[in-house]
Amino acid sequence: MKLTILGCHSATPRTNTNPTSQVLEIKNHMFLIDCGEGTQVELRRNRVKFSRIKHIFISHLHGDHYFGLIGLVNTFSLLTRETELHIYGPEGLKEVILLQMKLSGGWTKYPLVFHELSSKVSELIFEDDKVEVYTIPLKHRIYTNGFLFKEKKNERKLDINLVNEANIDTAYFRKLKQGYDVVNEDGVLIANEKVTKDPILAKSYAYCSDTVYNEEMIPIIKDATVLYHESTFLDKNESLCIPTKHSTAKHAATIAKKANVETLILGHYSTRYSGYNEFKAEAKTIFDNVLLAKDGKTFNFD
Amino acid sequence: MKLTILGCHSATPRTNTNPTSQVLEIKNHMFLIDCGEGTQVELRRNRVKFSRIKHIFISHLHGDHYFGLIGLVNTFSLLTRETELHIYGPEGLKEVILLQMKLSGGWTKYPLVFHELSSKVSELIFEDDKVEVYTIPLKHRIYTNGFLFKEKKNERKLDINLVNEANIDTAYFRKLKQGYDVVNEDGVLIANEKVTKDPILAKSYAYCSDTVYNEEMIPIIKDATVLYHESTFLDKNESLCIPTKHSTAKHAATIAKKANVETLILGHYSTRYSGYNEFKAEAKTIFDNVLLAKDGKTFNFD
Repeated sequence: MKLTILGCHSATPRTNTNPTSQVLEIKNHMFLIDCGEGTQVELRRNRVKFSRIKHIFISHLHGDHYFGLIGLVNTFSLLTRETELHIYGPEGLKEVILLQMKLSGGWTKYPLVFHELSSKVSELIFEDDKVEVYTIPLKHRIYTNGFLFKEKKNERKLDINLVNEANIDTAYFRKLKQGYDVVNEDGVLIANEKVTKDPILAKSYAYCSDTVYNEEMIPIIKDATVLYHESTFLDKNESLCIPTKHSTAKHAATIAKKANVETLILGHYSTRYSGYNEFKAEAKTIFDNVLLAKDGKTFNFD
Repeated sequence: MKLTILGCHSATPRTNTNPTSQVLEIKNHMFLIDCGEGTQVELRRNRVKFSRIKHIFISHLHGDHYFGLIGLVNTFSLLTRETELHIYGPEGLKEVILLQMKLSGGWTKYPLVFHELSSKVSELIFEDDKVEVYTIPLKHRIYTNGFLFKEKKNERKLDINLVNEANIDTAYFRKLKQGYDVVNEDGVLIANEKVTKDPILAKSYAYCSDTVYNEEMIPIIKDATVLYHESTFLDKNESLCIPTKHSTAKHAATIAKKANVETLILGHYSTRYSGYNEFKAEAKTIFDNVLLAKDGKTFNFD
C-alpha cells in the first residue's frame, strides 16, 4: 500500500502549495482521492500514469477538493483515453461536469460513470475481489464523505515443503489457502496450520478531510492501518474550528487514538502557517505515530 | 501598453507549459484575457496584484481558455475581495460559475457581474474615458470571440513655454489639449498647432484565439499596434486546420499583413511541438515584425 500526496493544503493553490489530492496504490489499484486545481499537472510531475487511474473519489464540492476534476476528465479525452472512468462524489458533481462538457461542444470518448453519493450513513461504494471502499460520513459545512479503502483478507501461505511431505494433492491447495483442513492421499486429515503460514495482514487506509472533530467516524475507521485526518489548525486557532467545521492536530490525534489506528498522517494545513512541525508536536502529545503530509511525498506502507 | 503572457499553449496544462491566459495593462487597466487551469498560480508567480483585476474576458468555453476561472473567482472570495469583478464571455459561462458556487454553499462577497456574449458581429462591450473594448467574432468549433482593446485618442500636448509666450489664459488649456484654436488675452486667435505637440498615438491590442484563417476579422483589427493571433500548427500540419478550426503561423502572418498591424505575436502552440523558432521563421516569410509568445514573458509596447 502506497500513498502519494499531490497536495495537502487548504483553500487556494499557490506557487508553493497545492490544494488537496492524493493517489492511493492498493492491491494494484490506483485510486485518485480528491482533485484540486492543478492535479493533472501534479500527476505528471509525480509520474503517475493517467491510464492507471480508473476510479476518482471526491469528498465534497469545495473548490480546493475538486476544481481540477473537469480539467483531468477533459485531458483524458484529448489523450484519446478509452478506459472506463468511475467518479464517486456528492450529488451535483455530475451536473457540473456534464454542463461544462456540453458547453465545450464535446463528450468523452471513453465511458464516464458517475456514482453520486447522498447517504448520511457509511456505505460500500466499490468492491472487487481484492479491495472494498466505504464512505465515512464527515461533518463539514456542506455534504462531505471521507473514504475507507480496505484490502480484503489475504489468503494463507502454503509452506510448499511441508505440503509435499504431507502428501497432499495439488487439487486441495486452494482449500488450504482459504484456511480449511484437508485429507491427504493416504486418507489422513491434515490440520491447516501444520502446512500453512499466516497471511500478510490486510491493510486499510482511512481518508478523513474535511471535518470538524467527530467521534461518529470512530467505529468505521477502527483499527485502520493508516488514518489521514485533516488538521487545518493549530491549537492556538481552535476557536476557528466550529465556524469553519475543521479540526486541529490534537483533534486528529484524539480520533487516531480512540480509533486505535496504527499511523496518523496530518494534512489540509491552513495556508496561514508556513511550517508544519508544530502540527506534529501538538498531535504527538496525544498519539505517538504521527507523520506529516507534504506535497509530492510518497508514504510506503508495505 | 504592456502584455504579460501567463500561458500560450493549447490543449492540456503540463509541468512545463501553461494553457492560455494573458494580462494586458493599458491606460491603468489590468485586463485578464482567458483563464486556463492554473491561472491564479501564474498570476502570483508573475506578481500581478489580484485586486487590480476588475475585468476578465473569456474568448470561448474550451477548457484551456477558462477552467481556471472558477478557482480565481473563488480565491478572490477567500481573500475577502470587495471590489466589483466583471466577466465577459459566451452564454453559459454564468451558469457554470453560479452552479459551482451554489454547490459549494457560498457566494462571492464582492459584486460579480456577468456580461454574456452571443452576437455574431463585433460589438462594443466595455468603454470608459480612456479605453474601448470590442469583440472580434472568430471562427472556431464553438462560439468564440477575440477582443480588441483600443486606447482612446490621446490629448495634444501643450508646449508650456509657447503657451505662456502666446499669453493664453489657463482656462483655455483644456480646449488646446482637445485640439481647438483659442483666443489669447490680447484678443488674438492662436492656431492650436503653434502651441501644442502631436499626442502620443493611441495604441491598440487585438487578441485572436482560437480561430481558423478568417479574413472577416481584418476590418476590425485594421492598423492595430499589436495582434496576437493563434498559430496552433506549423505548415507541415496545415491539414489539421480545417477539422480543428485552428491556424498556422503563415495564416497568422497573412492576417497581420493584410490588416497592416505593426507587430504580430504568435502563440497557442500545439503541445506536439517542443520548440517554437520554426513558427517565427514560417511567419516571417510573409510578415516581418513577428514575436513569439512564451509563458511568463512580458512585452512592453510603450
